[in-house]
Amino acid sequence: MSTVGLKANERIDELHINNYKIIQDPNSFCFGMDPILLTGFIDTEIKGRVLDLGTGTGIIPILLEAKTKATELIGLEIQSQSADMASRSVKLNSIENKVSIVEGDIKNADNLFPLSSFDVITSNPPYMVDNNGLKNNNTPKTIARHEVLCTLEDVIRVSSRLVKVGGKVYLVHRPNRLVDIISLFKKYKLEPKRMRLVHPFIDKEPNMLLIEAVRHGGPMMKIEKPLIVYKEKGVYTEEIYEIYGMNKGESNDR
Amino acid sequence: MSTVGLKANERIDELHINNYKIIQDPNSFCFGMDPILLTGFIDTEIKGRVLDLGTGTGIIPILLEAKTKATELIGLEIQSQSADMASRSVKLNSIENKVSIVEGDIKNADNLFPLSSFDVITSNPPYMVDNNGLKNNNTPKTIARHEVLCTLEDVIRVSSRLVKVGGKVYLVHRPNRLVDIISLFKKYKLEPKRMRLVHPFIDKEPNMLLIEAVRHGGPMMKIEKPLIVYKEKGVYTEEIYEIYGMNKGESNDR
Repeated sequence: MSTVGLKANERIDELHINNYKIIQDPNSFCFGMDPILLTGFIDTEIKGRVLDLGTGTGIIPILLEAKTKATELIGLEIQSQSADMASRSVKLNSIENKVSIVEGDIKNADNLFPLSSFDVITSNPPYMVDNNGLKNNNTPKTIARHEVLCTLEDVIRVSSRLVKVGGKVYLVHRPNRLVDIISLFKKYKLEPKRMRLVHPFIDKEPNMLLIEAVRHGGPMMKIEKPLIVYKEKGVYTEEIYEIYGMNKGESNDR
Repeated sequence: MSTVGLKANERIDELHINNYKIIQDPNSFCFGMDPILLTGFIDTEIKGRVLDLGTGTGIIPILLEAKTKATELIGLEIQSQSADMASRSVKLNSIENKVSIVEGDIKNADNLFPLSSFDVITSNPPYMVDNNGLKNNNTPKTIARHEVLCTLEDVIRVSSRLVKVGGKVYLVHRPNRLVDIISLFKKYKLEPKRMRLVHPFIDKEPNMLLIEAVRHGGPMMKIEKPLIVYKEKGVYTEEIYEIYGMNKGESNDR
């Protein structure tokens, strides 16, 4: 493992796989459970070139480097501070030969990379529609959570242009956007093939949606068994511990 | 309760609500759990005029007459034998003043009834795409299960024409058709608003989908908590017993 510098307020968190670590700044934005569960949903047999749109601190490409057979992983991030942390995390884990971070705009991603050049595209995009005039409050948190700088349609449109025919696009999003997600996937010739809903408890409605689409794929989507987060208050289910790569006794302080 | 005649092979089953009964012929086709769960999913506050497309033996309008505030319920059925059983079940329950059965073709339903005249449309349509050349085997079971005489698009197209603006359309179908269902709803200006997945067991993928759409409704669909059928092998969950209107000790011999 390399030595990299930490800036004020930054901290290093464990990723519980390959001894990998990640640099985050709790004062700007720390990743939640969403990207972790997305990497647990992604087919571990994926290979070739992977692009993560809006990579933040790089959590998705760093975990996918460890979990899959991907040979080249690129994280695209518009915010300099996050992109800089992501680049240093890549160095910290000595995976610069496979993972690179590019600073740039999702809306312009189809000009940054060759069309139809990726085997897999992933994204944990902003969830919330920007209809509250938040544009004057562009903090890192706002940009990561609200559709201020890019919309769901931007993410799906560029994914469709950048992924190979037969390649896979993975999203994590909110269940109440499912109709939009399916409609936009269809509009851009990405066929939804597999979906999983994440429920905080077995008797609660889902609060997260994991979905896989294939460019020019055939019809019929498989809906998988529910992913339940908590067995009881404060106690994760076995499956969540497995996805996190944690032993049951170990606490997750993120 | 009126007295009606039974034909050869027919039997009378209990519906566990209002002391209602239904005539079925096990040699042709008996309803399964699907229409029962659909009536459990439908808002009990619905009122006004209800149309059930492909009503079979009339299970949906008969149960909705008991469970909701609907004032007029029509069941449309193309198969004479089923329509005849449904009509006699309506008489058997003495609800002819509110429920009527019409023999006719779903594809032509928008010529049989005034456009935009129903508050609610329901359907438990054939699930299976007819791509196996089953057209020479038009038994009642085949017609009820396969898209031989009407397709999903037929059902959704006529629903959109017959339901009022702001009225509700309810379907039960297979989860692997969700993408088709959402795409067709959107095509015909029916906005999916609420969905529930039915899982045989909590750790199994869903095998049934309940969905509500509103004509010209606003965006955002709520996905509800999972509906689990069995607590353990052979033992229904409390919620299933409730939907069936059965006490836990009572067996369901359908």
